[in-house]
Amino acid sequence: MKNHLSKLIRPEVMEFKPYSPGLSIDEIRQKYKLDNVIKMASNENPLGTSPVVQEVIQKNASLAFRYPAAGNPDLCKAIGQYLNIDHQRIVCGNGSDEIIDLLIRVTAVPGRDNIVAFKPCFSIYKLQSRLCGVEFRQHALNNDFTFDWEGLYSLIDENTRIVFLTNPDNPSGHAVPSTELGRIAEKLPDSCILIIDEAYIDFASPVEEYSSLAPAIKSENIVVLRTFSKMFALAGMRLGYGIMPHFLADYLKRIRLPFSVNILAEKAGIAALNDQTFMNTTFELIANERQLLSIELEKIGCQVYPSQANFIMFKPPSNAWDIFEKLLSQGIIIRPLKSYGLPDHLRVSIGTVKENKTLIKSLKAILDEK
Amino acid sequence: MKNHLSKLIRPEVMEFKPYSPGLSIDEIRQKYKLDNVIKMASNENPLGTSPVVQEVIQKNASLAFRYPAAGNPDLCKAIGQYLNIDHQRIVCGNGSDEIIDLLIRVTAVPGRDNIVAFKPCFSIYKLQSRLCGVEFRQHALNNDFTFDWEGLYSLIDENTRIVFLTNPDNPSGHAVPSTELGRIAEKLPDSCILIIDEAYIDFASPVEEYSSLAPAIKSENIVVLRTFSKMFALAGMRLGYGIMPHFLADYLKRIRLPFSVNILAEKAGIAALNDQTFMNTTFELIANERQLLSIELEKIGCQVYPSQANFIMFKPPSNAWDIFEKLLSQGIIIRPLKSYGLPDHLRVSIGTVKENKTLIKSLKAILDEK
Repeated sequence: MKNHLSKLIRPEVMEFKPYSPGLSIDEIRQKYKLDNVIKMASNENPLGTSPVVQEVIQKNASLAFRYPAAGNPDLCKAIGQYLNIDHQRIVCGNGSDEIIDLLIRVTAVPGRDNIVAFKPCFSIYKLQSRLCGVEFRQHALNNDFTFDWEGLYSLIDENTRIVFLTNPDNPSGHAVPSTELGRIAEKLPDSCILIIDEAYIDFASPVEEYSSLAPAIKSENIVVLRTFSKMFALAGMRLGYGIMPHFLADYLKRIRLPFSVNILAEKAGIAALNDQTFMNTTFELIANERQLLSIELEKIGCQVYPSQANFIMFKPPSNAWDIFEKLLSQGIIIRPLKSYGLPDHLRVSIGTVKENKTLIKSLKAILDEK
Repeated sequence: MKNHLSKLIRPEVMEFKPYSPGLSIDEIRQKYKLDNVIKMASNENPLGTSPVVQEVIQKNASLAFRYPAAGNPDLCKAIGQYLNIDHQRIVCGNGSDEIIDLLIRVTAVPGRDNIVAFKPCFSIYKLQSRLCGVEFRQHALNNDFTFDWEGLYSLIDENTRIVFLTNPDNPSGHAVPSTELGRIAEKLPDSCILIIDEAYIDFASPVEEYSSLAPAIKSENIVVLRTFSKMFALAGMRLGYGIMPHFLADYLKRIRLPFSVNILAEKAGIAALNDQTFMNTTFELIANERQLLSIELEKIGCQVYPSQANFIMFKPPSNAWDIFEKLLSQGIIIRPLKSYGLPDHLRVSIGTVKENKTLIKSLKAILDEK
C-alpha cells in the first residue's frame, strides 16, 4: 500500500473485510432459470407489507420533498402510547442499527473502553464497536445455545461500557425470562449498561414473561432495542428505536444526525402501531407455523432448536452448505450460518403456509437423495 | 453529575448541547392562529414532490417489508449512468449527512487528526468531527463571503485528513469555478482529501463551470457530495451520495451499515434521475425567481449576496431577528442565521412565484412600519 494511503485510512478501518454482496432474488431467478424464488433468509414478515400501511405510504407520497421533523416527535409519542411509557425515553433511528451505533458512540472511549457480548451474536455489535475503536469481547454461548452468565461476567471489567444481549436470541431463537435479565443488570458495574435487543420479542409467548420493558423503565442501566422490520413488516423503511433511561436518551438526541428517519417511515410506523389486526394475524401465523415446521424438520432428521422468534435454527443430518446450495438452485433462499461460526447449522425464516410446505418438500427430497 | 455517569458518557459527547426542536408548520399555524404557513427555511424544492416520483413511491409501497439490497447496486448504477461515471466510485447514504460521517470515520484518527473548513459552514461537518473525537479547525470567510484560501492553508498540517468546502456555499450562495478547487486539491498534502459538498450545484449556471465532478474523477483526493434533497425534491426520503476515488469508495463500503438507504428512497431516487421535465421546470423557476427576488429585496433596502443556489442570503436594513419573528407570526418561515454566527443576516429559500410575492409584500410592510 502506498505510504500516504496508510496514513489516510484509519488502522481500524483497514481491518474491515471488503464488501461482497450476495445474490438478489432477481439474480438467483436468472442464474438458475427459475420462475419463482422464495426468500426465507432475512426474517422478514411472510405476509408482506400490511395493506393499511401501504395505503398510508401511498397517501403521504407527496410529502417526500419535505424534511422530517427533527427528532421524530410524532413517532416517539405514538410509540410511547403503544408501549404505555414516557415518550421521552424513546429514541428512533434509521433501523435499530443506528441506535446501536449511537449507544456505542455516546458511551465508549476509543482505545480505552470495551464492549461485551456472547458468541455468536448479531454482527453489527462487533462491527460498530471496532469502527468506534473499542475492544469487543465475546464469550461463547453454551453448547445448547443458552447463555453462560458466569462466562460473560468474567469478561466485564471497569472499562466495560456495554453488554449486548439479544432476546429472543439470533440465530438460535432461544429466549430467557426478563426476570433473569433484570438480575443480570443489577449485578453490572455502575458505569456499564445492558442493551437487550428485542428485535424478535413480538413472536415470544407470553411476551410479558420475556420482554424487558418493565425492568428497563425501573432501571438506570437497561436499554431495550426494538425494530419495525419483523412483526411490523417495515424492513425496507429502516425504522427502529431504543427505550432507555432519560439521561441516556438525552445524550443520544444531542449527537444523532437530525434527520436520520425518513418521513414515510415515520408515517408508516405510526400506522403499523395501530394495525392490531395485522399484528394478530402475523403472530398466529408465526406461532402455528413455527410449531408445524419444527415437527416436520425433526421428522426428516434435523435437530431443531426451540425458538421464540420468527425463524428456526436447525442442524440437518448431512452437510449444511450443500443443502443450502441445493435449496438455492431450487429457488428457496435460507440462511447458512457459516458467518456466525456455525457451519453445520442452518436458519430458516418462518414463511407462509405454502412456503413452509414447499421448503419441507424440497428439503425432504434433497435428504432422500443421499 | 453522578460519578458513574461521568464515566459512562464520553467527554466529547458531554460537550454537545441539549437538543431543542424548532416549531413545526402545524405548531406555528396553531400558535399564531393561521390558515396558511409558507416554509422558506430549509431549501426544499418549492414545487413539492414530482408527480412521476410520487407514482413510483405509490407503486412500490408493497415492497416496504423487504430489506433493501445491501449497497444499493441499482441506485449506484443509475447515478453512474446519469453522471456518466463509473458506478463503483459512488457510495449512497441516508442523506449526504451519512456520507460525511463515514468519510470522517474512515480517515480521521480520534485524538490525533484534524479537519479543516471555513467559518461559517454546514453544522454537520463540525458536529460529526467532534463526535469522532477529531479536532475541527475553522478559518473565517472573507467579509464578502468569498473563500480565503491562504487563511485555510494556514490551518492545514500533516495531521489534516479532510478539508470541507461547500460549493455553492451555504448560507451565502457564493460559488467558485471548479478549476479553482482543482488547484486547491493539488496543493493539499498527500494524506488529506478535499470534500466538495455540491448540495446546491444543480442550481448553479453554467453547472459545468462550477461542478467539480470532472476534476474529481481525475484525482485521487477529491470527493464530491451530492444530495437528492434539493433539485430532486426528496428531502424526506433521506438520500445522498459521494463520488470518490475507488480506494476510498471501497473503504466506505466496508464500514457502512449495510441497509442505511431505505428501499423506497432507492426507487424514488432512480425515478427522479430520469425525470428531466421536473428538473428543467425546477431550474427555470429557481433561476428566474432568484433574480426577481434579489431585485425586490434590494428595492426595499436589503443588502443581497449573489447566489448560485436555491436560496438567497441578505442583510435587512433593520434588526434581522425581529424581522424573522414578525414574518413567522404572519406564517412565513425563513431562516435566521444566528446559529451560523451571522445575527444580522437572513436566508430565504426561493419559493413559488406566489410565495416569493407574499414574502416581499410582508417584508415591505414590516420595514415600512419602522
